[in-house]
Amino acid sequence: MSYQIAVLAGDGIGPEVMAEARKVLSAVEERFALAIEYTDYDVGGAAIDNQGCPLPDTTLKGCEAADAILFGSVGGPKWEHLAPNDQPERGALLPLRGHFELFCNMRPAKLHGGLEHMSPLRSDISSRGFDVVCVRELTSGIYFGKPKGRQGEGENEEAFDTMRYTRKEIARIAKIAFETAQGRRKKVTSVDKANVLACSVLWREVVETVAKDYPDVELEHIYIDNATMQLLRRPDEFDVMLCSNLFGDIISDEIAMLTGSMGLLSSISMNSSGFGLYEPAGGSAPDIAGQGIANPVAQILSAALLLRHSLKQEAAAVAIENAVSQALGEGYLTGELLASEDRHRAKTTREMGDYIAKLV
Amino acid sequence: MSYQIAVLAGDGIGPEVMAEARKVLSAVEERFALAIEYTDYDVGGAAIDNQGCPLPDTTLKGCEAADAILFGSVGGPKWEHLAPNDQPERGALLPLRGHFELFCNMRPAKLHGGLEHMSPLRSDISSRGFDVVCVRELTSGIYFGKPKGRQGEGENEEAFDTMRYTRKEIARIAKIAFETAQGRRKKVTSVDKANVLACSVLWREVVETVAKDYPDVELEHIYIDNATMQLLRRPDEFDVMLCSNLFGDIISDEIAMLTGSMGLLSSISMNSSGFGLYEPAGGSAPDIAGQGIANPVAQILSAALLLRHSLKQEAAAVAIENAVSQALGEGYLTGELLASEDRHRAKTTREMGDYIAKLV
Ligand SMILES: CC(C)[C@H](C(=O)O)[C@@H](O)C(=O)O
Ligand SMILES: CC(C)[C@H](C(=O)O)[C@@H](O)C(=O)O
Repeated sequence: MSYQIAVLAGDGIGPEVMAEARKVLSAVEERFALAIEYTDYDVGGAAIDNQGCPLPDTTLKGCEAADAILFGSVGGPKWEHLAPNDQPERGALLPLRGHFELFCNMRPAKLHGGLEHMSPLRSDISSRGFDVVCVRELTSGIYFGKPKGRQGEGENEEAFDTMRYTRKEIARIAKIAFETAQGRRKKVTSVDKANVLACSVLWREVVETVAKDYPDVELEHIYIDNATMQLLRRPDEFDVMLCSNLFGDIISDEIAMLTGSMGLLSSISMNSSGFGLYEPAGGSAPDIAGQGIANPVAQILSAALLLRHSLKQEAAAVAIENAVSQALGEGYLTGELLASEDRHRAKTTREMGDYIAKLV
Repeated sequence: MSYQIAVLAGDGIGPEVMAEARKVLSAVEERFALAIEYTDYDVGGAAIDNQGCPLPDTTLKGCEAADAILFGSVGGPKWEHLAPNDQPERGALLPLRGHFELFCNMRPAKLHGGLEHMSPLRSDISSRGFDVVCVRELTSGIYFGKPKGRQGEGENEEAFDTMRYTRKEIARIAKIAFETAQGRRKKVTSVDKANVLACSVLWREVVETVAKDYPDVELEHIYIDNATMQLLRRPDEFDVMLCSNLFGDIISDEIAMLTGSMGLLSSISMNSSGFGLYEPAGGSAPDIAGQGIANPVAQILSAALLLRHSLKQEAAAVAIENAVSQALGEGYLTGELLASEDRHRAKTTREMGDYIAKLV
């Protein structure tokens, strides 16, 4: 049995870190006798340059034929002058999410032991550690709701967007949050703005109903403004944070920054048949692209998540995760994770990939 | 000439801290020979209990007849079972904002010298200090946009909210942000989600146009998700943050929490004729209400802002602000601002008010 993976390396540091993820994937293939075929496709700015649009048809078709998408990152200053719809991020990510109905986005953010000093939080807060996962609805809400546009003229010209959620859409993402919590610390914090938004009132109702099927999981509701604040004071008290599309965009980025080590974080975007897109949380980082110093760990962990969730190769996923933990634990780190006086022992992108592949 | 102030103390710690603000106001009245008349009105939970609704007609009429509103805080567990529309916060604050067209909300957040340890940020970040003001649009956007509601049935039942902004609405709040920046460090950071929202694309366009009239002010744009992150790493690089209603709700709370001393922060909500509502940022804090330990400083500073902005009594405002600075500088602090080993020298709500009034 052979698996197909569509590889969309994209822009900035994408291609560099993807090369290391491929190396590590080869190592697990060998160790676990897996047969995986990889096909590379243009996406984002690279696709604009080569084919005139951020998500060419060949890329979409290639993804359709694959078992999963391993995504790098897209975007950069070169394409920032384009209209929002044509830019790499919006023009590639949103259509991919929509086309494959990748309604479920999961972004874990854990403060790694030994890397507490990276967190921007006060040491007595970060020393308590935290381990949060944001479960974000990804194909509805104000991102996709119609109508969206402009009307009128002069100073009365107006723009409008529609936030919209059905019971069905809320229930399916809520279920995933509760199931995720069952495998963790059994607490779901649902983030909304039910004191202002009709969508949030429905959100709360449906989440309460779904919660009845998971009596072992504790449920609490929190307003988005308060969530943003409480994460700064007591991040260790959160487990699973269940969010609509827009609020999840904000919360997942906030918890990522709270770890202070975005180069270690990856994310899953999945649909109901297990097909998914796996990507690092950090973005294309054009400022350090091409220098061989980018941290490939997030991309490597994305590959592990792909093995687990889309290919159901749990043992191979664990092998990668263990290798990463061991490397980090041994102080095998890229420069951004080291204090300036320790930078001389920073590993390059390639050294990290080689070592993790070897440990696998 | 005599001024009229409508006093809406509200719930929780509202009445306690309001009593201290009144004390300080009496002191400046005497010193600056002002004639101010105060009338108390029910609002929030207290109004629900006494008159059956969170914003009774008599309260609204009283506010109409006044030169400004001094607001305490509303809400508490007692009223949380009510439908969102009938709850103290939503049922009082939103209609007040709408009725008086208080489109401009300003929430300054400054890390006070000597109180850096209160910030939840890492000490090397908080030691750089920060001084940010959030200028938030308060009467439009997704809070007030129509249509808002529900339709359909069963699992296809859906809820919807509309985010809506006109050029005029964006321009008037943008102008205030630029004017505010001119009196400060001359930088405006406009927060949006222009890679997803049509409203944000218009927002950016209008802000760019308004910026042309303020060539001495630097303008930058940032996405809301990135803003939430960057505030954690480099809060000292922000000056004025210009936000739509929903994003301002999130950013203003985040910056307040970053100071770690919400009991010191107050906010202004103003309309175009200078009429305004002045309130502490912290909320009704029902958990500590009635104990005499709440920090009255935010409420006292709200009174100072009222004197400055609605009554144009700059000297009186400065007198209060100086008295507050002096008291804090002398270590005159309520318990929540002291490390646990120093709590024995915590001042009560009343002691704080008495001392600040005396200094005035
Ligand atoms: C690029 C942008 C449209 C996207 C989003 O807001 O979803 C990004 O911020 C993310 O979180 O993946
Ligand atoms: C109570 C609520 C409606 C309100 C808001 O979201 O505007 C509050 O959070 C605030 O910021 O004043």
